[in-house]
Amino acid sequence: MAKATREKRDKQFGKWFRQMLIDAEILDYRYPIKGCGVWMPYGYKIRRLVTQLLRQLHDGTGHDEVQFPVMVTETNLRKEAEHIRDFENEVFWITHGGLKALEIKFALRPTSETAMYPMLRLWIRSHSDLPKKLYQIGSVFRCETKTTRPIIRVREVTTFKEAHTCHATFEESEAQILEATQIYKGFFDACGVPYVISRRPEWDKFPGAFYSLSFDVIMPDGRTLQSGTVHNLGQNFSRAFDIQYETLGGDHEYIWQTCYGISERAIGALISVHGDDNGIVLMPDLAPIQIVIIPIPSKENPQTILDTCREVADELRSEGFRISIDRREDLTPGAKFYYWELRGVPVRLEIGPKDVSRRQVIIVRRDTFQKEACKIADLPKGMRRLMNDMSDALRDKARKWMESRVHRVATLDEAAKLLKCRAGIVELPWCGDAKCGHIIEERVNAKLLGTQAGSEERTHGGCAICEKKARGLVRAAVAY
Amino acid sequence: MAKATREKRDKQFGKWFRQMLIDAEILDYRYPIKGCGVWMPYGYKIRRLVTQLLRQLHDGTGHDEVQFPVMVTETNLRKEAEHIRDFENEVFWITHGGLKALEIKFALRPTSETAMYPMLRLWIRSHSDLPKKLYQIGSVFRCETKTTRPIIRVREVTTFKEAHTCHATFEESEAQILEATQIYKGFFDACGVPYVISRRPEWDKFPGAFYSLSFDVIMPDGRTLQSGTVHNLGQNFSRAFDIQYETLGGDHEYIWQTCYGISERAIGALISVHGDDNGIVLMPDLAPIQIVIIPIPSKENPQTILDTCREVADELRSEGFRISIDRREDLTPGAKFYYWELRGVPVRLEIGPKDVSRRQVIIVRRDTFQKEACKIADLPKGMRRLMNDMSDALRDKARKWMESRVHRVATLDEAAKLLKCRAGIVELPWCGDAKCGHIIEERVNAKLLGTQAGSEERTHGGCAICEKKARGLVRAAVAY
Repeated sequence: MAKATREKRDKQFGKWFRQMLIDAEILDYRYPIKGCGVWMPYGYKIRRLVTQLLRQLHDGTGHDEVQFPVMVTETNLRKEAEHIRDFENEVFWITHGGLKALEIKFALRPTSETAMYPMLRLWIRSHSDLPKKLYQIGSVFRCETKTTRPIIRVREVTTFKEAHTCHATFEESEAQILEATQIYKGFFDACGVPYVISRRPEWDKFPGAFYSLSFDVIMPDGRTLQSGTVHNLGQNFSRAFDIQYETLGGDHEYIWQTCYGISERAIGALISVHGDDNGIVLMPDLAPIQIVIIPIPSKENPQTILDTCREVADELRSEGFRISIDRREDLTPGAKFYYWELRGVPVRLEIGPKDVSRRQVIIVRRDTFQKEACKIADLPKGMRRLMNDMSDALRDKARKWMESRVHRVATLDEAAKLLKCRAGIVELPWCGDAKCGHIIEERVNAKLLGTQAGSEERTHGGCAICEKKARGLVRAAVAY
Repeated sequence: MAKATREKRDKQFGKWFRQMLIDAEILDYRYPIKGCGVWMPYGYKIRRLVTQLLRQLHDGTGHDEVQFPVMVTETNLRKEAEHIRDFENEVFWITHGGLKALEIKFALRPTSETAMYPMLRLWIRSHSDLPKKLYQIGSVFRCETKTTRPIIRVREVTTFKEAHTCHATFEESEAQILEATQIYKGFFDACGVPYVISRRPEWDKFPGAFYSLSFDVIMPDGRTLQSGTVHNLGQNFSRAFDIQYETLGGDHEYIWQTCYGISERAIGALISVHGDDNGIVLMPDLAPIQIVIIPIPSKENPQTILDTCREVADELRSEGFRISIDRREDLTPGAKFYYWELRGVPVRLEIGPKDVSRRQVIIVRRDTFQKEACKIADLPKGMRRLMNDMSDALRDKARKWMESRVHRVATLDEAAKLLKCRAGIVELPWCGDAKCGHIIEERVNAKLLGTQAGSEERTHGGCAICEKKARGLVRAAVAY
């Protein structure tokens, strides 16, 4: 195992990220098609835990998992006018089956509204079929014209969890937006990944939506990553796809819809936010291996050491921990430390001859590298506490770091200066007019993430451009 | 809920199967693209349990789960000559990204050898990287020219579990074939689905394979369904994709490979084999709801009945059963019985006023409709035993039925007569020559499934065609 120089996370974030993906065996991006990566065994195990968490959160709130086909007919893709306008330039088209041209082209779904909604039309008849809350986890495809980056901007998004809900009234759809926001907050909190939620400006909402909310995460290089979105679709799609229901009174009304999505970008954020110069650092709940045991060899009693390792492993496994003993004989303990630190295993236990005789182990924590001895008898309880402490510490550290990267400013100059050196997010007062919004984007050379919900009341003074009364704080950032 | 006439399983199997898929809310096949279906919530829950079983069996034998892209470059798809020759007529081709033609066409993977093996070339360097055992679960695509049927012959196979293994020697690859066969036996046994294993004739093996084994299931209409395949690829693909490893001695050798797959056809078999005229019947281990509790309303003490239902549900849930109480107020108990029988829930518990006072429930078993009273105190133990009995009974019944459909015959006439009335599988002596094989296929108007492993020694007499010494029993059937 060659010990390559590791990139520093904060100095060369892009390089560090790519190196982590391949060195920690998460995702191999050398696939022969641009923008497509291969989930490797260790990465897939992280992906499993993340999708399991998403499933728990959705199942637990009455969502049903389904799976729709990957191909969509051109006719259906074109039904909602704004939707196709935005996606047209990045849809992959299937034109041939075998050696024959297809009569009608199929698109690889860029997102699944146009696959799902013709079926919802068949499934929804009356008010008793509502609400309907569905979700699926699968691939969506975009022939990205921008620079692709593994996990962050890809052509096959492999892990798109998209939920789609149907309601009888606008009010119920608004209540669903709140539930969706709560689910996503719960998800990112479990990942220990801090975020800001913004209402996207009109010109940047999801194509076909009434409005869009976004969860944005600040990456170590100061750029933001859109990591989850929640859309109220109003009746735009139900009108385009003619999805009506019969009310209690016998009338026919179009349904109200919402949709919300999270992709593998969340895994990208998870890795980036907690990682350090030694590798990735995993939240204990999302670590495929939570505890690795390294036997420290001794010439005198190698068997006793291995026996103790096994005893400790069995005990902790029976307590529900995911655990592994590294018994490789061709590696030194130091090389093993390096190997598992890189892969972000939360806790390392070292067991050497002295530890065996003292009935103890040495515990090393991945985030702080703190070392301490612990009696074997106290291990289960101690591990539980340590995992909780570490989860809290990672979450807190990430939150504090993010808070220091959100800057409330009064002028465009301040904003431009901060964004030029990738200082994170700036917030400034805005009248809400698109014209002023576009001027801000141009002057600060960044993107408006949108307005902070509830900032209307708290904002005093005038718009940073026109000086008319500000209608809220708008956030700007250099976004991925 | 309209009580439509139910098709009889054995008289109109094709219609019965389609009706079950939609009425039991498993899969909706009305999607606007031919050969593509939508997994509905209840069907998806069955799919989850089936994929979970597959994951357990593969993880438990040292296979690592991975995920490869859906798109393959034309160049890679064409690398193994036999492989592309067989798939060429049914590959979906992506020719455009947005409004532009792609420089090189992409195929939707028809199976993943050509996606995976260029990466294996990067991952495998030396003998220490071997063996490598990978699997993935996802979609593969075939522009079927034959008649499509939901789950059985589709254009998007949505649940393809494919394993791919790499070895240093041919002997190790042969040992892997044995392991794969054991895994699949375990899988089908857990499904209670009986099968025969045949070595496919040369002209029907997997394109590019050295040889192919197949698990074939007899469906209620007497046709066989290929439900799992195991292939030894030899070095055919490693030569085409140049995958070499460095031996202990420092030489470079091509690796030896196997691959094996199971798709949602297994779910089709599971539903068909155990189903009856009242609906599907699920093996308890693969039932999303194992026990449904139906309160039998009474004017006197409706609340006490519901309280008892909840008490029983809590108790059984804490014992690990998947359980549901049907509290719908607009349905009669009879309508509920019908609803859950259709969906194959293994056990129904009825609780009425008399049962409450006697501290008992009425148990009804889905496969036999046997009814018996059981004291609430005895329920957990009783349920465990009932689930085991029912699993054994379903498995036995299916096995006996299949055995009665496998016919050992001596002449072509007998074979042709049996196959004409779809009597299942016929076995007849065969010299092993392709010429005679093709004559059999033509004369009996059916397909050769291949030879029964180990039948060489046990076969006496001459080939049914040329009368030369038979080299084994060959199986013929009308196959899906």
